[in-house]
Amino acid sequence: MGPHPAVAAIRLAVRRVLHDVLNEVSRTTAAARPAAAASAHPGAPTGPGATHPGPGAAPAGEPPLVLVACSGGADSMALASALAFEARKLAVRAGAITVDHGLQAGSDLRAAEVAARLSALDLDPVEAVTVTVGREGGPEAAARDARYAALDEAAERLGAAAVLLGHTRDDQAETVLLGLARGSGIRSLSGMAAVSGASGRYRRPFLHLDRQTARKACLVQSLPVWDDPMNADPAYTRSRLRHEGLPALEKSLGKGVVEALARTAQLCRDDADALDRWAADADAAVRDEAGLLECAKLYALPPAVRRRVLRRAAIAEGAPAGSLFARHIEELDRLITGWRGQGAINLPGRVVARRQGGRLVIRQG
Amino acid sequence: MGPHPAVAAIRLAVRRVLHDVLNEVSRTTAAARPAAAASAHPGAPTGPGATHPGPGAAPAGEPPLVLVACSGGADSMALASALAFEARKLAVRAGAITVDHGLQAGSDLRAAEVAARLSALDLDPVEAVTVTVGREGGPEAAARDARYAALDEAAERLGAAAVLLGHTRDDQAETVLLGLARGSGIRSLSGMAAVSGASGRYRRPFLHLDRQTARKACLVQSLPVWDDPMNADPAYTRSRLRHEGLPALEKSLGKGVVEALARTAQLCRDDADALDRWAADADAAVRDEAGLLECAKLYALPPAVRRRVLRRAAIAEGAPAGSLFARHIEELDRLITGWRGQGAINLPGRVVARRQGGRLVIRQG
Repeated sequence: MGPHPAVAAIRLAVRRVLHDVLNEVSRTTAAARPAAAASAHPGAPTGPGATHPGPGAAPAGEPPLVLVACSGGADSMALASALAFEARKLAVRAGAITVDHGLQAGSDLRAAEVAARLSALDLDPVEAVTVTVGREGGPEAAARDARYAALDEAAERLGAAAVLLGHTRDDQAETVLLGLARGSGIRSLSGMAAVSGASGRYRRPFLHLDRQTARKACLVQSLPVWDDPMNADPAYTRSRLRHEGLPALEKSLGKGVVEALARTAQLCRDDADALDRWAADADAAVRDEAGLLECAKLYALPPAVRRRVLRRAAIAEGAPAGSLFARHIEELDRLITGWRGQGAINLPGRVVARRQGGRLVIRQG
Repeated sequence: MGPHPAVAAIRLAVRRVLHDVLNEVSRTTAAARPAAAASAHPGAPTGPGATHPGPGAAPAGEPPLVLVACSGGADSMALASALAFEARKLAVRAGAITVDHGLQAGSDLRAAEVAARLSALDLDPVEAVTVTVGREGGPEAAARDARYAALDEAAERLGAAAVLLGHTRDDQAETVLLGLARGSGIRSLSGMAAVSGASGRYRRPFLHLDRQTARKACLVQSLPVWDDPMNADPAYTRSRLRHEGLPALEKSLGKGVVEALARTAQLCRDDADALDRWAADADAAVRDEAGLLECAKLYALPPAVRRRVLRRAAIAEGAPAGSLFARHIEELDRLITGWRGQGAINLPGRVVARRQGGRLVIRQG
């Protein structure tokens, strides 16, 4: 008799990602040998990680190390258990990091307890890392920034080839809705990537798995899990969305909403990538010999591409991407499509845009 | 003292659309004169209606007729009142159509009452049109199809240059969420267009106005409005979304959700248009002399573009667009990106796709 279906599902998801990581490690190693690099043919199939330079190489001779980031919650405990199981069958070392955000009394004790549970799964090394959470961008963003900085540091220090994250399809659906609330277009609807970070370090094996499966896998494996009270605190947008917004949406629209949101994320990510590529190509084609943007050529672009070219140009001159809103780009766009002699436009980061002799001039002001 | 701000807002929205319609009518008329057409210079700015062949011409000598489609509800009554007001100041005749769907007892009496209210606004002609609602696609879709068929017929018969529809920003937000629930990509997230239908006949002046403004405008103008009980019936998805789903989402994500959804619709529409254009261009570039799709060239396209090319190709061979789901396109795509000798793939409409000698052959089976 095989394992419970939930356990089989989490293991399969992790196995697939470990195979990807191992393939990429061996490809990177091969590419490091000049002869092999020269023989690589351009038609070779490229996986989702292909756009990344490849995972960090393990110390020579040792099998690559894969870490799991584990809060002690059901999703990441399920992930840790599956990593421990699958790593035994492959040439992979498996370790774990748990981050103590220091936001609640006794969080250090809890981190130590989670670390002990991870060691009990035969993961090695296991580290509990303490971080200091700042304030920038609000409590959720500040905690996330501190957490990823700690994971990056640990991954570098330990020479990890990958760090697995326990985000599920439900987390993805929530992320899409949070992006929708910003109303800033398809990039923010594209949720979390299956592969992200420097060199494609972060992997999300559970992105197509639902939270219920992870929870069930913990239950049938008798894994103790810890429910972070922050996840149920209505002070946090994501928590409200999880416990009120998304269930109400499911009640209105039907049970398939979470899956539809996750599918939307993937489609939007591909669409956004394609349009960014078009904009990058267009950027070169709409400039004159002096490198200035020609208004007539900008005008001929589809609006979606033109707006991306304008956004790129503003960022290239120093406008901070995070402060550049749709209304700024619309105002810029009116210099092209609604020209009636407007004056200069001030953009964030002291960037100034004006139309001059059929050219759009964007400069530090 | 000017009108109440809500009344000023609805009038301004209608005035802008009437100006567009008048501009397009005069452009169409000018283009009909060969000499004028020859002098039109290619660099002339083109508005949102520019991709449409232009509104139907009014009988010679008469000012153009603009109709409002009015259910008697607050949104379309506000629209009717603003059309009546603005048409008086412009060279425009203003009429109205109300559609009796025959779905409730006494609907004929109600339609006659709405028609009387519209005539009282000095709209002329005013017609109450009775339709028979079928069953195809569910009750909401069947009612919509019957309604638009009746509006099309009336517009043709009366020689109307445009038909105004009362959809507000709130309707747009609901439409985006309904599209999101399908999970079929950005075209279904792009909601309703400000200009749509044959020759750009349908115009939605209130697409950026909230429902509350329309309601307020009726109130301060003492216009009686009729609340369709269907709008509050939880048997209908849109009604559940309006009264439960969207308010819960606003509670989780904040009051700006409706605006963010409407902005998302516009951005997605532009993105979808640009990608469709790319796919149309790519379609020609990836075919061999015999017109067959070359797998190697398809492979080199960005996934978002490749999937659109595949979808176009399947539709061109007779697969019905509405039955062609993401999973069909994914299966097709695996013939290109995950080739391991798969057999033929059956698509809706008896369309069969197979890979043969480096070509993707899509044919009626």
